[in-house]
Amino acid sequence: MTVRTLQGFMELLPEEQIVMNKMKAVIAHTYELFGFAPIDTPVLELADVLLSKSGGDTEKQIYEFQKGDNHLAMRFDLTVPLAKYVALYHNNLTFPFKRYQIGKVYRGERPQKGRFREFYQCDIDIIDRDELSIVYDAEVLAVIYTVFNKLELPAFKIYINNRKILSGFLESLEIADKTVDVLRLVDKIKKIPEAAFLGELGDMGLPEEKNQKLLNFIKINGSNQEIIAKLEDLNITNENFQNGLEELKTVISQAQNLGINADNIQIDLSITRGLDYYTGTVYETFFDDYPQFGSVCSGGRYDNLSSVFMDKKFPGVGISIGLTRLFDQLRDNNLLKFGGPTPNKALVITQSPEFADKAIHLIGQLRQNDIPADVMLRDCKFKKKMEYANKIKIPYLIIIGEDEAANNNYTLKNMTIGEQSRVTLEELIKLVK
Amino acid sequence: MTVRTLQGFMELLPEEQIVMNKMKAVIAHTYELFGFAPIDTPVLELADVLLSKSGGDTEKQIYEFQKGDNHLAMRFDLTVPLAKYVALYHNNLTFPFKRYQIGKVYRGERPQKGRFREFYQCDIDIIDRDELSIVYDAEVLAVIYTVFNKLELPAFKIYINNRKILSGFLESLEIADKTVDVLRLVDKIKKIPEAAFLGELGDMGLPEEKNQKLLNFIKINGSNQEIIAKLEDLNITNENFQNGLEELKTVISQAQNLGINADNIQIDLSITRGLDYYTGTVYETFFDDYPQFGSVCSGGRYDNLSSVFMDKKFPGVGISIGLTRLFDQLRDNNLLKFGGPTPNKALVITQSPEFADKAIHLIGQLRQNDIPADVMLRDCKFKKKMEYANKIKIPYLIIIGEDEAANNNYTLKNMTIGEQSRVTLEELIKLVK
Repeated sequence: MTVRTLQGFMELLPEEQIVMNKMKAVIAHTYELFGFAPIDTPVLELADVLLSKSGGDTEKQIYEFQKGDNHLAMRFDLTVPLAKYVALYHNNLTFPFKRYQIGKVYRGERPQKGRFREFYQCDIDIIDRDELSIVYDAEVLAVIYTVFNKLELPAFKIYINNRKILSGFLESLEIADKTVDVLRLVDKIKKIPEAAFLGELGDMGLPEEKNQKLLNFIKINGSNQEIIAKLEDLNITNENFQNGLEELKTVISQAQNLGINADNIQIDLSITRGLDYYTGTVYETFFDDYPQFGSVCSGGRYDNLSSVFMDKKFPGVGISIGLTRLFDQLRDNNLLKFGGPTPNKALVITQSPEFADKAIHLIGQLRQNDIPADVMLRDCKFKKKMEYANKIKIPYLIIIGEDEAANNNYTLKNMTIGEQSRVTLEELIKLVK
Repeated sequence: MTVRTLQGFMELLPEEQIVMNKMKAVIAHTYELFGFAPIDTPVLELADVLLSKSGGDTEKQIYEFQKGDNHLAMRFDLTVPLAKYVALYHNNLTFPFKRYQIGKVYRGERPQKGRFREFYQCDIDIIDRDELSIVYDAEVLAVIYTVFNKLELPAFKIYINNRKILSGFLESLEIADKTVDVLRLVDKIKKIPEAAFLGELGDMGLPEEKNQKLLNFIKINGSNQEIIAKLEDLNITNENFQNGLEELKTVISQAQNLGINADNIQIDLSITRGLDYYTGTVYETFFDDYPQFGSVCSGGRYDNLSSVFMDKKFPGVGISIGLTRLFDQLRDNNLLKFGGPTPNKALVITQSPEFADKAIHLIGQLRQNDIPADVMLRDCKFKKKMEYANKIKIPYLIIIGEDEAANNNYTLKNMTIGEQSRVTLEELIKLVK
């Protein structure tokens, strides 16, 4: 039979998997540093639950099937499972509820470069009952900022906006009935020419003069302080607009209060995140020198997480990192950090098989001292053993021969700088550790 | 609509998930300490690939479905995906290949207490081309021993046997043609009465006198050295028997050479692991005081991993921990370690909302010093804030009021011992860290 892995499913060699796992660990560690607790919902759910609030595209992409009496589906994101989780367990949760989840999700898209059918999402959300402090919208910025720094990623900017500002502006222009369509269009502004943008607004039946005002509005630029000043200068009294502006100002100032470098945050009035779902702050993150990656971390504030499942109101704010795609893009551009083809720090080899027992005893000692170590047990020539050590790029090589055995010590070679010395067990542990 | 999670799918509250994740991290860390590199194969594979060597029971339990042109299935273990992985990538792997994989697998069993349809397996395997040193069979013992100790699990024993010994014994009795059936029956010896055991052997058409010899053989007991001595005293010249005995002796002595406490390993000649798959060393692990848990870590040596997929020979040895079931059993018996309802080490609360900015600035500082910290932002009475701190069992509480703000310091309360003191930022970071 022909063996193969399905198209669109990432499968890495160990040396790449080590990097991927390290990235996952850094993300999880950072999320916990900010007080987010882990949850782990099933990959399989009732199709009814997953599809309760989705649109047509999702339904076409979903992996679903009948098993016994149940119509099942594989999750296509971690947000719907979170909505289910809060609906089921809210009486047992402590609010504000800060959760993170790192897990695989499934979309049966047509496979193409950079699109995966199975991929990791790394999500955080903060949810409260009835009301959630706006300071958490700044905290989300601090999490993205810290994660990206700890991942040693290329220079990046988090673009931020507040949907109330644009909604309020549309209300002030008296074209609020078109808000949903306009927000979707604004989301595309960077991908289409201005003329096409104005044309599509015209097709919606909106008057030319208002369309030009709208275009000028979303093109407002400058530093964060300059944009805020320009927005204030518009003297728009609309309540939505004013609330959004106040929120945006608070988020920017509290982000700095939390210690974020101001250069990494940029207000961009054209960011709307197409989905109707979001109601306030919205985020997108781009690498300065790799805009072609698209947004590598996005999210926003929403009024009500679990509205499909229950009457109670749970507002929240959250973001998601699409890790599989990010990893793929970084790899393609030679931007991966935290390398290493082996988890081992030390490899023991012997001049002859008679020292195998001593070598095995030594790796036991090293591991008991929390040093990842291994022994080359294959009965092959010494030269082959050296080739193996070079191939796996081992940081420390330990050699046991007649002389070492007689003197009860070891030859330790630092493979990075190429130096070697004769050491006792105690010295060896100290040096390698 | 009625929201629910599917039966047989474990879903934990955050305080339990923190424990589960800590266990997963300890297992992964220990596997890496022994030089195992991670791999992460897809949950979905071609059904043909997954079912290539499985029997009838697996096919009934598998989650499978058609999507487009492909017949897909969710993996039911991590061994078949490993066989596929080695078949696909062996030219890019360095041998001996030591891999670990921790991931969810799926079996559509009838749900019942202690049985899960989605559960974590934590596997290690060591694979080589053509031949694999027997020392790795001892190394696997060292891994189980270390993982169980680091997980702070109850007193346990790893039961070990070598299938060649029993096969050789059956050959010497001249009933080798019944080996497969006999091994399956021996595997059940602890669950059925001796009379039933002898009866079933009789039903296979075996003579009474040989059956009694077989029963006496698998009941041989004593310390490891005593059992080995008794086996040697049998003076069986059969080659298979002698090879198996030699291997067993090497595994026991090298395990001690690796630093394992001899009390944690026990030879048990009745351990066969029903599957035909295993060809040498076999392992099962039981808690001394909780035999009803069944084997919590099992595995063994096999001659050829990927025989269904290719001609090349890849012998290996490996074990698997069924983590979801183990977690469930430990929880039911109040044996879980590493508790904690929150990842946070410190919580900041204020005497009045005017100090919120100072509190937010402080948590930024703490996190920059790698201390997981949070602030209670809800505008509620001080008493409510104290209740919240107690509810999440925070280790350190930090209070900011008028006096603290005026003196630029903080009240730090160690919630474990109940003491509190007034400290500067520097002192605070030092104390909490």
